[in-house]
Amino acid sequence: MNERVTRLRELLEEPLLVTNAVNIRYLAGFKSSNAALLVEPGRVRLFTDFRYAEAARAVEGVEFEQTNRALLKDLATRLSGRIAFEADAVSFSNYETLRSGTVEPVPRNGLVERLRAVKDGGELAAIRRACEITDGMFERLAEEPFVGRTEREIAWTIEQLFHDEGAEAVAFESIVAAGANAARPHARASDRRIGTGETVVIDTGCRVDGYPSDYTRTFTTGVVDGRVREAYAVVLAAQQAGLEAIRAGVTGVEADAAARRVVDGTEFAGMFGHGLGHGLGLEVHEAPRLSTESADTLASRNVVTVEPGIYLQGEAGIRIEDNVVVTEDGIENLTRLRKDLITVD
Amino acid sequence: MNERVTRLRELLEEPLLVTNAVNIRYLAGFKSSNAALLVEPGRVRLFTDFRYAEAARAVEGVEFEQTNRALLKDLATRLSGRIAFEADAVSFSNYETLRSGTVEPVPRNGLVERLRAVKDGGELAAIRRACEITDGMFERLAEEPFVGRTEREIAWTIEQLFHDEGAEAVAFESIVAAGANAARPHARASDRRIGTGETVVIDTGCRVDGYPSDYTRTFTTGVVDGRVREAYAVVLAAQQAGLEAIRAGVTGVEADAAARRVVDGTEFAGMFGHGLGHGLGLEVHEAPRLSTESADTLASRNVVTVEPGIYLQGEAGIRIEDNVVVTEDGIENLTRLRKDLITVD
Repeated sequence: MNERVTRLRELLEEPLLVTNAVNIRYLAGFKSSNAALLVEPGRVRLFTDFRYAEAARAVEGVEFEQTNRALLKDLATRLSGRIAFEADAVSFSNYETLRSGTVEPVPRNGLVERLRAVKDGGELAAIRRACEITDGMFERLAEEPFVGRTEREIAWTIEQLFHDEGAEAVAFESIVAAGANAARPHARASDRRIGTGETVVIDTGCRVDGYPSDYTRTFTTGVVDGRVREAYAVVLAAQQAGLEAIRAGVTGVEADAAARRVVDGTEFAGMFGHGLGHGLGLEVHEAPRLSTESADTLASRNVVTVEPGIYLQGEAGIRIEDNVVVTEDGIENLTRLRKDLITVD
Repeated sequence: MNERVTRLRELLEEPLLVTNAVNIRYLAGFKSSNAALLVEPGRVRLFTDFRYAEAARAVEGVEFEQTNRALLKDLATRLSGRIAFEADAVSFSNYETLRSGTVEPVPRNGLVERLRAVKDGGELAAIRRACEITDGMFERLAEEPFVGRTEREIAWTIEQLFHDEGAEAVAFESIVAAGANAARPHARASDRRIGTGETVVIDTGCRVDGYPSDYTRTFTTGVVDGRVREAYAVVLAAQQAGLEAIRAGVTGVEADAAARRVVDGTEFAGMFGHGLGHGLGLEVHEAPRLSTESADTLASRNVVTVEPGIYLQGEAGIRIEDNVVVTEDGIENLTRLRKDLITVD
């Protein structure tokens, strides 16, 4: 079996039933909405229903067993004894189903996620390529007209540009948030037309071989007021402080604090209302977290976003986000894109 | 508060903590990846973190309370007493978190899903429009060249056509599966080039106002062999039998059996390896299910897919899928698209 499974086995105290679809994909290269992987010391078994059976048969290094569509109900009697399950991925209902048969389920958390947080060469190559494409996409986007077009139209332009540049797909629904909408960190692109003198927060990314980029840049249309420019400079300084703080061994809380301190030392104190960043991999949000609530410590080959923001309620928003690889003594910044305040037409 | 909440209250024995994001969207029109809605007899409270706070403040008929990012940990001590939770949506870990404080969590299932299965006028209008767009998209797609292009290129063409026709987005990752790939009901679009004499299964849909369509048509390139044509005729007859069996009061098992009987009476017996269909709404797969494992009974204003298939391993696949509204005495078929075997270039 592959090296990922070998590393996972070192973490296990009992056989692990992997049901998180992303974790199954990571361990076995198999993608399905209804599957489970049982990792035991001497074997790996892959369970799925008819719809995915032919693809499952082609997976190397696993023994395939076809189940009913009601997968966990089937496994509850097919398997027996102490078996660890992914307590973050299994619903309370499915837990009750699993323990209704011959299985003695043991809750475990974050085992595969811990492996996933440290990227291997192939993963880094995919993310690096996704970032190159995103650099190119943003450069072309900055040449596009903004004023008079809706946020949704810009989102569709982004999708087309990503496709032209060779991306597999957009990595998530793009945020295109202009004017007061930009004050919402997770705004959705709307049918509102972009006017002049607005900030436009664009948070988007693409996928290459299943791995994402996740960038944010803040554009302006025409002249914006001095307070917005000042906030932009503070966000930029906060991001720089965050980037400088990150290296292996630093905690997610410490990295976040380095950036937050900069914002909180200005008139914009308290307006950076989310975490500094998150891990980036098969999931756009994964371990490690960089935030006031994080329990993680950074390690070499983590890939994280660094994205401070300032949100002026009812008025404007600013966020700048890069993607970086954590190294022993700092970072490699995969984002080459300029980060001064760009004015678009 | 709105009528959906009023109907929900009639089903409750204790306050319900809604954490399924789709259910929150359905009840409150609020979209977030980190929120909870507590429905009590006299009030509705909406909980979310800073990132969604401004949007949450704009929601009518709810009392908004901002929480930490670790939402359920926060609620475990903010709330108290017997509170029902959505056992299908809450992970075992979150259940443990919830019961670690002052809440006495009571597992419940499918309460909001039961309401969602019966569509109101606005929902039907959105699905109807999504189906019209999908009819138009498929008509234009059939004019496109297929041979020599990759499955992925066709998938991108579909996305562009949907956008041109006025869709909000594709509803899910399109399945474009040619030749032997078509034998996998849930194949993913690959970089394999489409040849002549192949069947091409296209399973796609779009979204309008958040509501999806979900169609499948099977095209052929050039001349396919007699067995494939025969299988196509059987799938068509099976679909017809399924469509004729559906009406309010029929069970999901009965509807499925009506179509399955047709396939199983031919040389293709056993090759229709999935359920006949599923409910269609804010989620592409929702209640009610039409399958051998279904526990549902159809009701007026359900919207379901009807999609039998035959899969010839290593060779070809055929599936035909329409979207229908269940009525007291039958169906209204929202899919106007032709369903003979279409040959494309």
